Amino acid sequence: LSSRPEKYDRLVGILADVVNLRHAAALLYWDQQTMMPTAAAQARGHHMATVDKLAHAKLTSPEVGQLLDDLKDHEATLPYDSDEAATLRVARRQYEKATRIPPDLIVRISLAGAEGYVTWRQAREANDYKVFQPALERTYALMREVTEALGWEDHPLDALVDEFEPGLKTAQIEALFDDLRATLVPLGQAIFNRPGTIDDGPVRRHFPSEAQLAASQEAAVAVGFDLDTRGRLDLSVHPFTTSFSPCDVRITTKVDESFLPTSLFATLHEAGHGLYEQGLPVAFQESILGEGASSGIHESQSLLWENVVGRSRGFCEFFLPRLRSLFPDQLGGMSPEGFYRAVNKVQPSLIRVDADEVTYNLHVMIRFELEKAVFDGRLSLGDLAEAWRAKFKDYLGIVPPDDLSGVLQDIHWTGGFGACFVSYTVGHVSGLQLYEKARAEIPDLERGFARGDFAALREWMNRNVHAHGRKYTPQELVERATGRRLETGPYLTYIKGKFKDIYGL
Amino acid sequence: LSSRPEKYDRLVGILADVVNLRHAAALLYWDQQTMMPTAAAQARGHHMATVDKLAHAKLTSPEVGQLLDDLKDHEATLPYDSDEAATLRVARRQYEKATRIPPDLIVRISLAGAEGYVTWRQAREANDYKVFQPALERTYALMREVTEALGWEDHPLDALVDEFEPGLKTAQIEALFDDLRATLVPLGQAIFNRPGTIDDGPVRRHFPSEAQLAASQEAAVAVGFDLDTRGRLDLSVHPFTTSFSPCDVRITTKVDESFLPTSLFATLHEAGHGLYEQGLPVAFQESILGEGASSGIHESQSLLWENVVGRSRGFCEFFLPRLRSLFPDQLGGMSPEGFYRAVNKVQPSLIRVDADEVTYNLHVMIRFELEKAVFDGRLSLGDLAEAWRAKFKDYLGIVPPDDLSGVLQDIHWTGGFGACFVSYTVGHVSGLQLYEKARAEIPDLERGFARGDFAALREWMNRNVHAHGRKYTPQELVERATGRRLETGPYLTYIKGKFKDIYGL
Repeated sequence: LSSRPEKYDRLVGILADVVNLRHAAALLYWDQQTMMPTAAAQARGHHMATVDKLAHAKLTSPEVGQLLDDLKDHEATLPYDSDEAATLRVARRQYEKATRIPPDLIVRISLAGAEGYVTWRQAREANDYKVFQPALERTYALMREVTEALGWEDHPLDALVDEFEPGLKTAQIEALFDDLRATLVPLGQAIFNRPGTIDDGPVRRHFPSEAQLAASQEAAVAVGFDLDTRGRLDLSVHPFTTSFSPCDVRITTKVDESFLPTSLFATLHEAGHGLYEQGLPVAFQESILGEGASSGIHESQSLLWENVVGRSRGFCEFFLPRLRSLFPDQLGGMSPEGFYRAVNKVQPSLIRVDADEVTYNLHVMIRFELEKAVFDGRLSLGDLAEAWRAKFKDYLGIVPPDDLSGVLQDIHWTGGFGACFVSYTVGHVSGLQLYEKARAEIPDLERGFARGDFAALREWMNRNVHAHGRKYTPQELVERATGRRLETGPYLTYIKGKFKDIYGL
Repeated sequence: LSSRPEKYDRLVGILADVVNLRHAAALLYWDQQTMMPTAAAQARGHHMATVDKLAHAKLTSPEVGQLLDDLKDHEATLPYDSDEAATLRVARRQYEKATRIPPDLIVRISLAGAEGYVTWRQAREANDYKVFQPALERTYALMREVTEALGWEDHPLDALVDEFEPGLKTAQIEALFDDLRATLVPLGQAIFNRPGTIDDGPVRRHFPSEAQLAASQEAAVAVGFDLDTRGRLDLSVHPFTTSFSPCDVRITTKVDESFLPTSLFATLHEAGHGLYEQGLPVAFQESILGEGASSGIHESQSLLWENVVGRSRGFCEFFLPRLRSLFPDQLGGMSPEGFYRAVNKVQPSLIRVDADEVTYNLHVMIRFELEKAVFDGRLSLGDLAEAWRAKFKDYLGIVPPDDLSGVLQDIHWTGGFGACFVSYTVGHVSGLQLYEKARAEIPDLERGFARGDFAALREWMNRNVHAHGRKYTPQELVERATGRRLETGPYLTYIKGKFKDIYGL
């Protein structure tokens, strides 16, 4: 083993600046969403643009390129698993991506995103996709430029998939969706034919905001999120998680006073992201390795704690008494089983963010199929709204009555097009693959949930996921943890088992 | 008039990056003091160091030096009052100061400051100045290096005075203190000989924190601080003000449940700083001109709203009814005149931050005299604690029983020595000079206070102080606003008039 060259330390020093600037940018964003006075939006835009610009300039500086070149021979001598090798891998990957996209393209994407957002708002106001279409045409053209700038082998979308899920290919994503489609579409149909099976009336009563926040806080702490010295929970319009080190991880939630599950499960979702961030090694706090493996793997953790744990019989048994002490009038007559069923009600919905575990990935699949059809030249953006409705009819048996509840619902397409949603599905699939492995290794895992004991699962995820930071690609991480490539089996087995039981199918 | 050269725009673009980075750094600081989880201190240090370093690197880049050189001829053609000329003046000034101090000296000062803080804490723990002395010796040696690096003509302290109060000289500061000493020492003696004249018992009852915060918020809004869309009020251990644009100005306060004035007047003090920041031109928000003229001029505004307005008969008459509705039991029997007297009680105190209007500047003077004696070689740092005690006996008639309530009380000397405190006195003096001019120009100014009408004073300060940002030096600003150079007359007239009346002297 060669000793660590000075050039490596120099590179790590520059990367630390990049990481610290990214964390400063993350604080600017967190503050904007939670604390900032309303009149400050324009000034905050300037702060964020400047910090982003300088982080990008640091990462793409000729010195970084030179150091990466000079360190190639050294890198070849390092064990693949070492932090040093991983640092060089990830730095090289980020450097190459960042330098391949010309600065003027970045500016044009940024401007198109800002304009796209405004146009999207106008289109929503008018409830008319045609208003948004020109902005989406522009965005799509820019995304094509990006795919060419980044390069691809099998399919142009590969370049965009790789941005979110390093190493994954469009063909793999399609294969995942083929499996999901074959199981989830008929399962959904079977469930939709049994409406009225579940009564969620009791969770649709009036639940005052402050008590809901107290419940959410308790739930986050129960699963192990450190709100004491290393975390915060605040309110924002769209719940999110951000972090500036493993010692400063901030989650947000939102409250719907007429629907108890909104805040509770949004909080557990973000707490799942938060456990990942708090579980990253402190040694990585200024390192380019100090973040999650990918958007999808991050989503695996949030969906795990929200759905697989939070919406489990065990968690419901554990947490209902706590909810009942906060809401004795509303939940007095509710049984754990009734609560479990109420928070797992399945129904065909038009809106992705309101979808349940059975239908959620159909929403994602529809979007990916449409994006891919456009990239393949089989669908024109002029026909997107109509194609959207046709897909909803096919897969969910319902048709959006207007664009607002259809093609105009997501903010994602205001700034991007192609692979915008796949990480959610990668998250569901990898999450269950990881979970099933943990369950096989930990005796009586789920019985612990009913006692409020989540430590074994959290620690398993910490060892197998969190502790690696960004060292591995999603595929590598899943294979190391489970011994198998990313596959839909565990996810589909879980979904079928859970919902056939609930719906008596 | 020559047209604006491209090089000027280029320079302004770089300065905008510097300003945006400084604002990002300010948010990192605000968050640290108000929101940050306790375990995050170390990581936050890295974020701040990186952002500071990059702001400094931007400002001191050779390109900035070249642009400033290239623009000299252009600058000579500009009217002194123009934004362009002022931008070049201030940029040149900051560039020259920043480049004169060698980078290794900045690092040594920063490290010595961090160590000095730790040593100061240890010395306070041990209640022993001798523990702190070595750290202070080091800091003093570094400050001598700074004075030599920056350069000076009449006295080395000029270099440090100029850092806080551009254009002011040590000799001028000394002359101010000569005036203050001659009036304030005998005035203090006369008042101390009449103890018991004022009963502040009613403001020393129990005042619950939440109601105090509500009162503080109301007071800040009453004087015109925009808490609605352009500001915030939060809690922190040490009250402070920061801002990231005129549209995002944040003040903090602290609450003492057994002493009502703490939170109320800390809030009015910070609201005074906040009015200055909210009053800066929005057009300066990315400009190097977008901050106050100096620490002293900033302090003129905070002291004005805290003392001259907040502790006036008019304000007490206006605000007591509001306090009484929040605290009917505690303040039920209090008259406006009684409240006015209670919040203006004068007593010789050992602690600067607890000092009243009469004695505050004696505290500052003692520190400046000691700093200057050390710089003049007339006092060794080994004798500082003893010299401190002697000065207190001379000027305030009391002697600190220990170092904790004596020479170890201020955090300022952990990172600097020399001119650390003079801005407070510049603030008192210039504040009254500005106020007296406003009063001469605005009919019935003080009668408005009793009706809660502070708009005329605020607007006068906005026109004469806030609107200029950093365009003028303190001296220039005061001269433009009042027609006279900085002078102690208005301040001493105010102090004598107010306190001879209150104490019946």
